[in-house]
Amino acid sequence: MLEKIGKQTIKFKNLPTILDTACIVGPKEAEGPLAKYFDKCLEDEFWGEKSWEKAESKIIKETVYSAVKKSNIPISSIDFCFAGDLLNQCISSSFGLRDSNIPFIGIFGACSTFVEGLGLGSIFIDGGAANNVICAASSHFCSAEKQFRFPLELGNQRPQSSQWTVTGAGAAILSSTATGPFVTHFTPGRIIDMGIKDANNMGAAMAPAALDTLITHLTDTGRKPSYYDAIITGDLGHIGKEILIELAETNGFNIKSNYNDCGVLIFDKDKQDTHAGGSGCACCGTVFSGYLFNMLQSKKYKKILLIATGALMNATSSQQGESIPGIAHAVSIEI
Amino acid sequence: MLEKIGKQTIKFKNLPTILDTACIVGPKEAEGPLAKYFDKCLEDEFWGEKSWEKAESKIIKETVYSAVKKSNIPISSIDFCFAGDLLNQCISSSFGLRDSNIPFIGIFGACSTFVEGLGLGSIFIDGGAANNVICAASSHFCSAEKQFRFPLELGNQRPQSSQWTVTGAGAAILSSTATGPFVTHFTPGRIIDMGIKDANNMGAAMAPAALDTLITHLTDTGRKPSYYDAIITGDLGHIGKEILIELAETNGFNIKSNYNDCGVLIFDKDKQDTHAGGSGCACCGTVFSGYLFNMLQSKKYKKILLIATGALMNATSSQQGESIPGIAHAVSIEI
Repeated sequence: MLEKIGKQTIKFKNLPTILDTACIVGPKEAEGPLAKYFDKCLEDEFWGEKSWEKAESKIIKETVYSAVKKSNIPISSIDFCFAGDLLNQCISSSFGLRDSNIPFIGIFGACSTFVEGLGLGSIFIDGGAANNVICAASSHFCSAEKQFRFPLELGNQRPQSSQWTVTGAGAAILSSTATGPFVTHFTPGRIIDMGIKDANNMGAAMAPAALDTLITHLTDTGRKPSYYDAIITGDLGHIGKEILIELAETNGFNIKSNYNDCGVLIFDKDKQDTHAGGSGCACCGTVFSGYLFNMLQSKKYKKILLIATGALMNATSSQQGESIPGIAHAVSIEI
Repeated sequence: MLEKIGKQTIKFKNLPTILDTACIVGPKEAEGPLAKYFDKCLEDEFWGEKSWEKAESKIIKETVYSAVKKSNIPISSIDFCFAGDLLNQCISSSFGLRDSNIPFIGIFGACSTFVEGLGLGSIFIDGGAANNVICAASSHFCSAEKQFRFPLELGNQRPQSSQWTVTGAGAAILSSTATGPFVTHFTPGRIIDMGIKDANNMGAAMAPAALDTLITHLTDTGRKPSYYDAIITGDLGHIGKEILIELAETNGFNIKSNYNDCGVLIFDKDKQDTHAGGSGCACCGTVFSGYLFNMLQSKKYKKILLIATGALMNATSSQQGESIPGIAHAVSIEI
């Protein structure tokens, strides 16, 4: 039985376990500092496919199958799949997973999708609607640049505030029966729009949403930031990370010592020319499924708060002069 | 406490009530046979906005506010919002609902989105994660044609198999405490792709998914089609409806006497030049929120099975020669 506590946090009682995870990344991510934590690193952005979109579909498909295989649960025992991505109408997920036969619940939270899936999946498990679910999300640098910004062939110069969409996918299997790590709370976010219009500065657009969800989560649970070994946002990158630290401090929360961001962790800023850091659904998806899950399993982290951030815009909204609404969904994970 | 029964159906025990609904439609829908059931009929496709996308955002926003107002629940007591639409990155929902302050869970099921929301919302209510939620979905003929097919200014001739995307939005408030109509079961669908590639024949592409969910639901619950006063699909239209009747019969299920489709119901085929019927997230959303909810309230229908269908493709996938995967989500609603 679930319980809503405070303003908008759901507390789990029959704690859902994260049984296993899998992640596949592209060549750029394979050169980054977290390479050893990823299950598979691709040598090129196409993986034998004819388009970037088809490659992205293959990546999420193989990631899901890999997670299922690692978990030793027959795929027929996975009750539901929660998945989404950045492509228009989420075609990476629907094409990639159409042959899986798993009942499919499509979700869209832009780059917050992975944690939205973990939260919804946990509700199914704890509520008794499922024994096992899989949550997955993907993104691809090339398909995202093409769709949201400029044709890659232009060789367009990227401003220093721009982020690098992670090529890859992450997947996690949640189960009702296992021994942890456990999802203990889910705080879905509100849409926050502070009027930022620069599609090359997503970190700044999303930081206020991360702040709102962070403060709401801490207030709802009565916890301090220091309760967590690590507070990790999804893809604020270097600029958004600094903004969030400052905004949190202004609001009376000191997160300097235990806060980091997946977009900061995944690339080497000095060596990789990725400017403000990583972004995309796969940024949080692969860093959690690879690095963070490893840290939890090895007990280096015992309690983490994972806050995935998303920018809810599209190319048309930017062209029509709209600002960029942000959202952030959080799950608390403990061993 | 929820219970999974059979292959993929969730049975509710603390039955979520549909407290109230609202719907707003465009001028074409206002000329159709269901006009009197809609809360508001717009005189033009722009509603004072500068673009079709902004108009669609306004439609879903005003529909949500209207449903909240009708329900007499303060908006601050709506715990979560489940919403989605057909626009790239679901911007109708995120822009339309960014000022609502309701924690937001973005969903994407193409034209099946409305029922996906009803199902997820019901799980939150029954599981104890929420007392009140709102589920909404929108679509807009002009923004959809522009995005998926051809610029409207072309005056392109539409084949007879094409459907007319409904302009409008539907919203329903689910609550833990009220007296019905109740959501009793949710059967999320699998992705079914039978290889149909014609983006102007969505009914044919989605009918096999509707069949799969229909048979699964009936098998999981042990019910016969005759259990329901009405079985209603979301937007198969005239062609898809006939295909589903035939496919069901081949599989041993006779649905001829009590089956219809929202896309067939919403337009007058002979007078309105809408070819194969209505489609879009708002097709199921408005026909349920207007007509079907009225039929339940007036006890003309006591048990309905609502199966919303979605085509999980985009313009790029069609251009790359891909087929059209379909999905269908079902909820059983009883008074």
